[in-house]
Amino acid sequence: MKKTALIMAGGKGERFWPKSRLTLPKQFLSLTNDGKTMIQLTVERILPLVDMEDIYIATNETYRSLVREQLPDIPESHILCEPVGRNTAPCIGLGAVHIHHKYEDAVMIVLPSDHLVKYNDIFTRTLEEACRVAESGENLVTLGIAPNYPETGYGYIKADTSLKDGDAFRVDRFVEKPDLETARSYVESGDYYWNSGMFIWKISSILSALSRYMPETYDGLSKIGQAVGTENETDALLSVFPTLPSESIDYGIMEKASHIYLVPGVFGWDDVGSWLAVERVRGADDDGNTLSGNVTVLNTSGCTIEAREKLIAAIGLNDLIVVDTDDALLICAKDSAGDIKKMLELLKKEGKDSYL
Amino acid sequence: MKKTALIMAGGKGERFWPKSRLTLPKQFLSLTNDGKTMIQLTVERILPLVDMEDIYIATNETYRSLVREQLPDIPESHILCEPVGRNTAPCIGLGAVHIHHKYEDAVMIVLPSDHLVKYNDIFTRTLEEACRVAESGENLVTLGIAPNYPETGYGYIKADTSLKDGDAFRVDRFVEKPDLETARSYVESGDYYWNSGMFIWKISSILSALSRYMPETYDGLSKIGQAVGTENETDALLSVFPTLPSESIDYGIMEKASHIYLVPGVFGWDDVGSWLAVERVRGADDDGNTLSGNVTVLNTSGCTIEAREKLIAAIGLNDLIVVDTDDALLICAKDSAGDIKKMLELLKKEGKDSYL
Repeated sequence: MKKTALIMAGGKGERFWPKSRLTLPKQFLSLTNDGKTMIQLTVERILPLVDMEDIYIATNETYRSLVREQLPDIPESHILCEPVGRNTAPCIGLGAVHIHHKYEDAVMIVLPSDHLVKYNDIFTRTLEEACRVAESGENLVTLGIAPNYPETGYGYIKADTSLKDGDAFRVDRFVEKPDLETARSYVESGDYYWNSGMFIWKISSILSALSRYMPETYDGLSKIGQAVGTENETDALLSVFPTLPSESIDYGIMEKASHIYLVPGVFGWDDVGSWLAVERVRGADDDGNTLSGNVTVLNTSGCTIEAREKLIAAIGLNDLIVVDTDDALLICAKDSAGDIKKMLELLKKEGKDSYL
Repeated sequence: MKKTALIMAGGKGERFWPKSRLTLPKQFLSLTNDGKTMIQLTVERILPLVDMEDIYIATNETYRSLVREQLPDIPESHILCEPVGRNTAPCIGLGAVHIHHKYEDAVMIVLPSDHLVKYNDIFTRTLEEACRVAESGENLVTLGIAPNYPETGYGYIKADTSLKDGDAFRVDRFVEKPDLETARSYVESGDYYWNSGMFIWKISSILSALSRYMPETYDGLSKIGQAVGTENETDALLSVFPTLPSESIDYGIMEKASHIYLVPGVFGWDDVGSWLAVERVRGADDDGNTLSGNVTVLNTSGCTIEAREKLIAAIGLNDLIVVDTDDALLICAKDSAGDIKKMLELLKKEGKDSYL
């Protein structure tokens, strides 16, 4: 069966401020050493399975030009701009009706645009297995990441390891972000996986699930879908999409539907959730520093410093994140990385909106 | 007797990097809230006692244009450019022979160009008393700062408190920078003062002392002095000055001569020796931060941040010095402020000479 992909690229990515901005979120940044942006890497990663002309990007008008610039080979009609953000269920549904318009039925691979994968070949094989499971019935498949530490910032998926199809397990249940103790028990049990936000299903399967579990959304999406390729396409999108209830695909479908499968992935996944991830992604030197750009350090350890042409001279520093941009510089203690959002609120309060 | 002044402004001031550079040392920077540079404040401070046309600036060719720019009212012939640095004795001697050429004899006030004084009126009264003592004989007078803590970075002067002339004490001896224990005993004794590097004497007294204690230097200076105001002035300076031995006035004269007096000063003196001094000079806010320019801080304390137009956003920082300039940014732990010189060596080693 034809394989297609929807890449979700509408997020704001505040946690990478000041490199990320309202007008330049994380998925359009390069955080790796190869100079490629997150969304470029995401596209590259699925090309072994999906043709470029079968890739769709869900984003919004603000980022349309960034998508065109960074992904010039994506057909322009495949850049789907949501008029407003309505969480992942309407976003995925919008992609589904477009693919349905083109192919009637096909495998649809749904991917976030701002995650990293270390081992692309393993990723491809995992995705192939997920496609196989998706094609053999009405199965809704997700990729689960085998956890290697008790992360409390992710949702988890419990596999029913007694029900196996190839490499896939039936999903027992989805669980919210746990506290540390619970997370530890999840990791120890071996039955829990991180929810990667990557999904694989047939168009017919997801539309059927939407129809059953989110009928209101399904009706709206059907109207939008009927207008695709006609002169009413934009009108339908602009008038109907904002009326759809805001809902995640996890809550709206995955936690309710049956035939949910999980294919465990060990492909070096990283959601690059904050500046703290950069040292994992790029690798630190012997002093635990991850440096880029024009930096000179003295007696400095555990620091992530993103310089540009301007020299950054660091003396006697420990465990700081330093990020320079044209108009703003962040200096943040690593254990305060979670406070970047608070800083953005503070900047707004101080009338410094131009830096957001 | 006529009062004249020599302001010494040839220093490099590496400790204020990156704001200070080889081409823009500390004395030409503003480190206070009033926007005036250190050398401008130094001149302003002595104007109650010395006419502008009786002030001389000892510097070098590199800084001549900075002196003219920042002190346009100083007569151009009073900007004395040493061809090479030979420490303070030849520098002061050069000033002395110029003043001798103009006035035969006069009171000469010698001042560093990069110190701050908080109470200008007390400074003026102290200087007046020092002038009185200098005029009454061949006395060589220095201003001593009553120490309020056991600083180990300064030289000390021991006063002989049994020999008093007005507010002045005879000097018992000059001592080198002490260790902490010794410094504590100095402060407790009440007889020791910080060596401020400010001197007051008659031209006849200092030339006489140079002749006696530094005859070689005196002979060279005499040759330079005889050429002042003639067409040979520059030639004499360029050919003779470099032949003078490098020597400090403290070691060459003050530690050897008799008739040395000290006038204690309580005028809020600060040598602004490093970035650490900036919070003393400018005052810190309730969180112990001293901020200037476009800065927004969150959970940050004890930091000195010198921003410019570029926003500096600080999160969760403690006891750091941050200084932004056009082409270089310093981030330095306060307890590593002494390592700035090492950083400059490191930059040189890395071929980043343009930042020095």
